[in-house]
Amino acid sequence: MPESKNFHMSPGEFRRCGRAVVDWIADYYETIETFPVLSQVKPGQISDQLPDMPPETGEAFDRILKDVDDIILPGVTHWQSPNFFAYFPANASGPAILGELLSAGLGVQGMLWSTSPACTELETRVLDWLVDMLALPEGFKSTAKGGGVIQDSASGAALCAVLAARERVTGHGVNVKGCREPLVAYVSTQTHSSVEKAVKIAGVGSDNLHLIPVDADFALRPEALAEQIKIDRKAGCTPFFVCGTVGTTSSNAMDPLPEIGRICREEGLWFHVDAAMSGTAALCPEYRHIHAGLELADSYCFNPHKWMFTNFDCDCFFVKDRETLVRTLSILPEYLRNTASDLGEVIDYRDWHVPLGRRFRSLKLWFVLRHYGVEGLQHHVRKHVQLAQDFAGWVDAAKEFECVAPAPLNLVCFRHTSGDAFNKELVERLNRSGKLFLTHTTLNDQYVLRMCIGQTHTDERHVKRAWHLIQDTAEKIEQDGLVP
Amino acid sequence: MPESKNFHMSPGEFRRCGRAVVDWIADYYETIETFPVLSQVKPGQISDQLPDMPPETGEAFDRILKDVDDIILPGVTHWQSPNFFAYFPANASGPAILGELLSAGLGVQGMLWSTSPACTELETRVLDWLVDMLALPEGFKSTAKGGGVIQDSASGAALCAVLAARERVTGHGVNVKGCREPLVAYVSTQTHSSVEKAVKIAGVGSDNLHLIPVDADFALRPEALAEQIKIDRKAGCTPFFVCGTVGTTSSNAMDPLPEIGRICREEGLWFHVDAAMSGTAALCPEYRHIHAGLELADSYCFNPHKWMFTNFDCDCFFVKDRETLVRTLSILPEYLRNTASDLGEVIDYRDWHVPLGRRFRSLKLWFVLRHYGVEGLQHHVRKHVQLAQDFAGWVDAAKEFECVAPAPLNLVCFRHTSGDAFNKELVERLNRSGKLFLTHTTLNDQYVLRMCIGQTHTDERHVKRAWHLIQDTAEKIEQDGLVP
Repeated sequence: MPESKNFHMSPGEFRRCGRAVVDWIADYYETIETFPVLSQVKPGQISDQLPDMPPETGEAFDRILKDVDDIILPGVTHWQSPNFFAYFPANASGPAILGELLSAGLGVQGMLWSTSPACTELETRVLDWLVDMLALPEGFKSTAKGGGVIQDSASGAALCAVLAARERVTGHGVNVKGCREPLVAYVSTQTHSSVEKAVKIAGVGSDNLHLIPVDADFALRPEALAEQIKIDRKAGCTPFFVCGTVGTTSSNAMDPLPEIGRICREEGLWFHVDAAMSGTAALCPEYRHIHAGLELADSYCFNPHKWMFTNFDCDCFFVKDRETLVRTLSILPEYLRNTASDLGEVIDYRDWHVPLGRRFRSLKLWFVLRHYGVEGLQHHVRKHVQLAQDFAGWVDAAKEFECVAPAPLNLVCFRHTSGDAFNKELVERLNRSGKLFLTHTTLNDQYVLRMCIGQTHTDERHVKRAWHLIQDTAEKIEQDGLVP
Repeated sequence: MPESKNFHMSPGEFRRCGRAVVDWIADYYETIETFPVLSQVKPGQISDQLPDMPPETGEAFDRILKDVDDIILPGVTHWQSPNFFAYFPANASGPAILGELLSAGLGVQGMLWSTSPACTELETRVLDWLVDMLALPEGFKSTAKGGGVIQDSASGAALCAVLAARERVTGHGVNVKGCREPLVAYVSTQTHSSVEKAVKIAGVGSDNLHLIPVDADFALRPEALAEQIKIDRKAGCTPFFVCGTVGTTSSNAMDPLPEIGRICREEGLWFHVDAAMSGTAALCPEYRHIHAGLELADSYCFNPHKWMFTNFDCDCFFVKDRETLVRTLSILPEYLRNTASDLGEVIDYRDWHVPLGRRFRSLKLWFVLRHYGVEGLQHHVRKHVQLAQDFAGWVDAAKEFECVAPAPLNLVCFRHTSGDAFNKELVERLNRSGKLFLTHTTLNDQYVLRMCIGQTHTDERHVKRAWHLIQDTAEKIEQDGLVP
């Protein structure tokens, strides 16, 4: 029961309950390897344990925390387990969690500079730091004509890029008159679905998203892009946007940014680059070649919430021309007017994305950068890449397995040589074991396993154990025979 | 320095630093009234204290936390101060902060049911609870054909509503072919700017957002809406969307939902209702009249992150027909396919909003509902409304002040009788004092002060003190005379 008759949690109660949650989390990380990585519950199993009706009177915090253990935890897929190799990582870390806690405690709303100057100024500074840390083009800095902003996700960033591109090509007419022109956007067949979603949201229509074929390494073929643009112009359409990817979701393919960028310059198209997971690799000088050609891009994003130890949500979106972005998204009602904004002296980040309100998300990023330092972050990126390269070597050396795409960084796409049904069964048995979690994709119409190594606490022993488990499980399936 | 050579914060270190942050927050709330509510820093003042270059090596956590005190805190506007009366509240509470902490610790990504079943099933259940708690139409429940989802903000909700409406009216053609039709959306002159932003993003164009005039109480005039729809149809346009507001941002005006809803039904338009702050009032039966007519709405949103003690971000968005929403936003690439989704047995919330990834935000909402219970939440809502009504009474009784709009709930719009320049000076002096923070709007071309009472810890003494300060400051300006 709440301590006082005003129902609030008193500061004393907050200290006690806060410590309980901190300890709960520490315990969780100390025991995380004992849980099945992929939750094994059936649909409705969690729901069935929750009351149908909301609580009329308050309950003790300890009872709520006990229900987290009893009801919630079995329904959790453990993204922070070092045995999580699925999708892309959404890795967290101690300093990030505490940054998020502090942000929640302060509870500020950073929609305008004036509604919390530190929320805006820390974000601007930290995103400028990232330009240096990743050796991104200087034009993405706030000290040039560009700048960075924290978005919820690469989907949000892609949407903002599409919208700014749409405005630029129509001379800022779409915002006023609506999207009547037959605009055309381009991605490769391997580009993340978020761009299709953005193009649909923007009213461009998925018929007007043209998929460019890829080469043998699953990278966009620039000559096919150039050709398609010509065809579309002849047909009376207005090409306006291209998204290149640094590390596709399926196979970590690297689109040829210099060639795509050159075409975009010649044709006057907005060039967005999505490096959601792989951008983090550029912390290390030896991997910075992935960004070659980025100086030709109009916008760029990568997600510290994937591989840079910063809790979701934290996508960093950079533009070279902040004026266009702001003009696209800015609306200024009277009730938000204030002296600092009117004088044009400050950044108001509400004009840099879809939502008006915003949390103090740069705190967690700042905590991570300061806790690890560039040195610590590089250490883990290098380790993950090395582990993936080791894993790819083991796959190559095994007679019954094969790599099916280049593995430039920390993602290995591979399969057993016994066909799709066998590989499907392999993934299902592995995930059902609870000992690891990995996911699949299709490449060249084949069912393929993806081993993505980037969880904060993944070490050599986890990858070695995974490989043994994969081999053992395959052997077991061979012994059992496939049940059709 | 990080304890171990792997640079991570060890569980032991996390316990120690975590307690330090919990205590920091408790101390903060115990001393929050000693800080100037509106940050008094100048543009660049925080930035100037941050290093130009990112840290090469890791730093001790205590040093980072000390910089929060020394550098960040002076740049914070204290949204959690009981003397915060600006904009709308973005109130937080102990259980919400700890729910956010737990969510950060678990670090799950709830894009699909299968990527953490509990994240989806708790959200569905808690949002069904809210339908009961606010006595919303049963059609908004997941057990009917509708359902609720947590969005980042009312802006995100408005965008999703516009997109679903756009798809419905064009027979799902826009997603495929692009937005070529001259669609028209309707709001009142007082509707929040997020709808204009949504209409622009969707490619409809702000020319095609028609502003309907309001009555003397700043509520949308339904007969003017009906007339404008007729005019637009005659002009060959396709009306498709209306947003009604329960409690406008400027003055808390209540649009007549029954009349607007009837028009939308007759004309086949999507009817979205935005109750961002005021929806929370429906926790109390005596205020539920604000939702009369809501059974005619296609979608509805309110923000527990405004007045329901749940940290930003937490907007609850409900639709009556989830199929249309999902069809509008769904894209299913191979790498996200999984058995549960393929069988259609589960909700995948990634199809209910713009971003793909999502945090476990229902945890904080669940913590708040269980900690306070319906009873505790009602207590505070009633208290805030009563305080605002008291304040309006004091204004009415004061010769030199006047209320300039109805105050149905917790927002009072008022002004000094000495004109715009005087009122501007009054707001500026009050906010510069640091003793409270309030903001302005314009109503009937007059500069108006807004006193919004909804911060978690605001009690009678804060409102009384604010009123005395407002009176005293006005007297001082009268004595000083206005310096032009």
